[in-house]
Amino acid sequence: MHGLMMDVPLSIPSMIRRARRLYAHREIVSRRPDKSIHRTTYGELISRSARLAKALQRLGVREGVRVATLAWNHWRHVEAYYAIPSIGAVLHTLNLRLHPDDISYIAHHASDQVVLVDKVLWPLWEKCAARVGAKHVIVMTDDGLVPPGTLDYETLLAAEDDTFPFDDVAEDRAAAMCYTSGTTGQPKGVVYSHRSVVLHALGLGMVSSFGLSDRDVVLPVVPMFHVNAWGLPFACAMLGCGQVHPGPHLDAPSLLALFQDERVTLTAGVPTIWMGILAALDAAPGQWDLSHLQTMVVGGSAVPLAMIRGFQERHGLRIVHAWGMTETSPLGTVSQLPPELMDASPEDQYAYRARQGRPSPLVEIRARNETGIVPWDGTTMGELEVRGPWVAASYYQTDGPDDRFTADGWFRTGDIVTIDAGGCITIQDRAKDLVKSGGEWISSVALEGALMGHPDVAEAAVVAVPHAKWDERPLAVVVLREGRTFSEDALKAHLAGQFAKWWIPDAIVAVPSIPRTSAGKFLKTAIREQFAGHYGLTDTAARGSVS
Amino acid sequence: MHGLMMDVPLSIPSMIRRARRLYAHREIVSRRPDKSIHRTTYGELISRSARLAKALQRLGVREGVRVATLAWNHWRHVEAYYAIPSIGAVLHTLNLRLHPDDISYIAHHASDQVVLVDKVLWPLWEKCAARVGAKHVIVMTDDGLVPPGTLDYETLLAAEDDTFPFDDVAEDRAAAMCYTSGTTGQPKGVVYSHRSVVLHALGLGMVSSFGLSDRDVVLPVVPMFHVNAWGLPFACAMLGCGQVHPGPHLDAPSLLALFQDERVTLTAGVPTIWMGILAALDAAPGQWDLSHLQTMVVGGSAVPLAMIRGFQERHGLRIVHAWGMTETSPLGTVSQLPPELMDASPEDQYAYRARQGRPSPLVEIRARNETGIVPWDGTTMGELEVRGPWVAASYYQTDGPDDRFTADGWFRTGDIVTIDAGGCITIQDRAKDLVKSGGEWISSVALEGALMGHPDVAEAAVVAVPHAKWDERPLAVVVLREGRTFSEDALKAHLAGQFAKWWIPDAIVAVPSIPRTSAGKFLKTAIREQFAGHYGLTDTAARGSVS
Repeated sequence: MHGLMMDVPLSIPSMIRRARRLYAHREIVSRRPDKSIHRTTYGELISRSARLAKALQRLGVREGVRVATLAWNHWRHVEAYYAIPSIGAVLHTLNLRLHPDDISYIAHHASDQVVLVDKVLWPLWEKCAARVGAKHVIVMTDDGLVPPGTLDYETLLAAEDDTFPFDDVAEDRAAAMCYTSGTTGQPKGVVYSHRSVVLHALGLGMVSSFGLSDRDVVLPVVPMFHVNAWGLPFACAMLGCGQVHPGPHLDAPSLLALFQDERVTLTAGVPTIWMGILAALDAAPGQWDLSHLQTMVVGGSAVPLAMIRGFQERHGLRIVHAWGMTETSPLGTVSQLPPELMDASPEDQYAYRARQGRPSPLVEIRARNETGIVPWDGTTMGELEVRGPWVAASYYQTDGPDDRFTADGWFRTGDIVTIDAGGCITIQDRAKDLVKSGGEWISSVALEGALMGHPDVAEAAVVAVPHAKWDERPLAVVVLREGRTFSEDALKAHLAGQFAKWWIPDAIVAVPSIPRTSAGKFLKTAIREQFAGHYGLTDTAARGSVS
Repeated sequence: MHGLMMDVPLSIPSMIRRARRLYAHREIVSRRPDKSIHRTTYGELISRSARLAKALQRLGVREGVRVATLAWNHWRHVEAYYAIPSIGAVLHTLNLRLHPDDISYIAHHASDQVVLVDKVLWPLWEKCAARVGAKHVIVMTDDGLVPPGTLDYETLLAAEDDTFPFDDVAEDRAAAMCYTSGTTGQPKGVVYSHRSVVLHALGLGMVSSFGLSDRDVVLPVVPMFHVNAWGLPFACAMLGCGQVHPGPHLDAPSLLALFQDERVTLTAGVPTIWMGILAALDAAPGQWDLSHLQTMVVGGSAVPLAMIRGFQERHGLRIVHAWGMTETSPLGTVSQLPPELMDASPEDQYAYRARQGRPSPLVEIRARNETGIVPWDGTTMGELEVRGPWVAASYYQTDGPDDRFTADGWFRTGDIVTIDAGGCITIQDRAKDLVKSGGEWISSVALEGALMGHPDVAEAAVVAVPHAKWDERPLAVVVLREGRTFSEDALKAHLAGQFAKWWIPDAIVAVPSIPRTSAGKFLKTAIREQFAGHYGLTDTAARGSVS
């Protein structure tokens, strides 16, 4: 027996229609490359989005065609977010932090037919253009001066009217795609559907995740070329949040000024951004009025407890830890305090908030080790697997079967976690970064967090180094805080108070800096390579890729 | 091009799996018929729900079979809510306030094969049983003593284990059905799908609607036989809210004691309930500690502004106005203050909160009068039409075409509204209760609200009465507050300050009481009949049904 409810598709245009009708006057604020501020509203922006939709159709963009963007976070990029899926085309956000070879590979692999490029990023695009073969390149700029052979975004919009209806699109259609910037192997494309984007936006509205509503002003520090800025531009349209976009200016003073001036209530980004913010606040406490800022969501890497505590105790700002991936849209888990901890001690609350939290509605989790699905006991480590309507089922046009998906249809995240009885996960490591010592697992992330809690240490990374007796043993590299001196023994003693003896790295080495990926994460492959012979073995090939 | 996300259905069992894993220890509290309190948890309740699922399967219940309930709000009813859709069967909640003839008609029309009955409701069911032809009748009671020919609920559960897996069900399948108790014509069945129930639960989680989370303890005063208690038992499972169920005891002192003792944070019901609560609080201010109660959602009829103000100013309690229908699951609109009114005067805030609010995400609204879709100007009246994935597309097995659905697939609500520029609706009337005077529309609801704001008036109803010159003119009946004397002139003068002259009822009549429907709404057909000749015409058939 069928239900007798309306067969209304979950589609991005319905979110845009809603914003146009209900939130026309809500502001969208952007910082331009010259640091000046641009202001618009959903009403104006969606009117321009309608023109862009018609302009793209006039250029021959049809359903399923990939339209790429190479752009910072700003209002024109938001216009592209709303227009491209609404004509049934596929929004493909290119990661401007990648090497031109990678950008070219990705744009070619996705068969991007049209590319929208920030004029300030033209030098980057020039290095890619010849290898991509896009039919049209549209340049986004205020000055009307665009390179030969390209189209001016504003001229295209001026030639159209705004009568585009934003009619529904079938919910299983591709809406957007984003390639994962894996540290090994070729980048792989994740293809979001209209359905997954809409459901994910509802997920971001849940009180237990981001709790977005029209009372919020949201500043996504996370780039719009990274998992659709965590889906925030779509969720904000559906839920009526104001938006603030920092453009290319991600330095702490620029962000802090926007938080203050635009009365931002929620912001979201990776830990490296917040480290900079915390340092700026510590250097000039009270300089910015952040009384409207309620939530700073952090994801992408684990955040040290010391940072959560530092924001809270020194500046009254609340860090909310979340976990997700490009393959999970990215909302997976969020660490909001459960009711039983609302009256707990600050220590217990910090300890919970330093974990990655519980799964969003519609997301299911489990973890697996060599012996099968692990119990939810808070201590047994396993690789996290997830399932849900906004989780990838496969990658775009890959060769052969993919071992990232289980036989029963779950996604293998590559993250090693423990899960407690309440369903709260703690990321212990990336599967490939886990140290496997004598058959037991050691969490590099846990050791790093503890080392970064030591007053001498600014940054720390722990890697597995081949070892004759134990197969692998941990090695730590640390960057010292200014003015501190290095003592390997002191740091080992600091760890000895918190971990079993066999967890303590055999060596701790001071380094001037730690190499990072384009997404700001530690580039552990490089560290492993550098220290591969440190424990006496020379065969760096001893360690294969785990996931 | 298809999206490449997981094809995970939106299904009720996934919500139950989630509650079992994440919220096993959260409490579900019920008041028994003898007024004693029963306590259980999601873990225990879902274990029993699993047994019920297996027991029903053993009785031969297969996908699509209708399983009815005739029960108050309590834990066993919740168990049925979770078990029946999870085996692919259809939960059909029977309205115990209807006449046995109507219950029999509805249960027969739905072909209910199994009926779960509260033992305290057995006398009612006995009057229906012979006309329904259910294969199995299961009686829910604590004492193990059930009428001959029926099955004892607890005995059935005791014979099963709790290994039922709560596997997903296809999302387009029927999950639940509920008949509308229309004041005219035969009751009509609305059939909810798994998809619509899950999406609706996400809707209730939005901050701009109910904002439910695991920090909430929810007491649905709205019966579980009325639109699935507004979907709350499902949303609570997905979002981890505690639940409190009042059983048959809906008197104000019983409810107030539960609010206090169980630290209820959100409750929901129709205005008549809240009138009783307000009177009890006014009679004994401070007697109950309601410091945890944050939100009292009111729907089903318009709430007088005076009541919203009374709760807020005299007792610090926040009424939230909502609009919905059986056909809309029921979440349609919710009157949460928009950001631009957060700093407005109390008067402006009350005025907004007395309206029915803006549509939930995924719900689209428009209104139509004789000339077409009306503008969103806050003054032009039209019949509200809605569209969305949790709105009915048709009724269950009706004869011939249904004029409640437009050619382009919207549902005609029968409610006359104005919509303002921000998308906030104000219910002006039911289409059938609207007074059409000389071709212009007069809102009976607006006049009633104003009359009930007069200190002499306890209740007021306004109806259309046939009139020789104007076709129809308004007539008001009022119930006076105790100790007050009636003055028609004074009440007319009171209205004259608020409405155009031609809106003022030609006659205002004092009556001892106003007849009500089983749902607690004014039974205006009866009033119209009684006063049909009051303005000189005797042809009561002059007014046909509008919708």
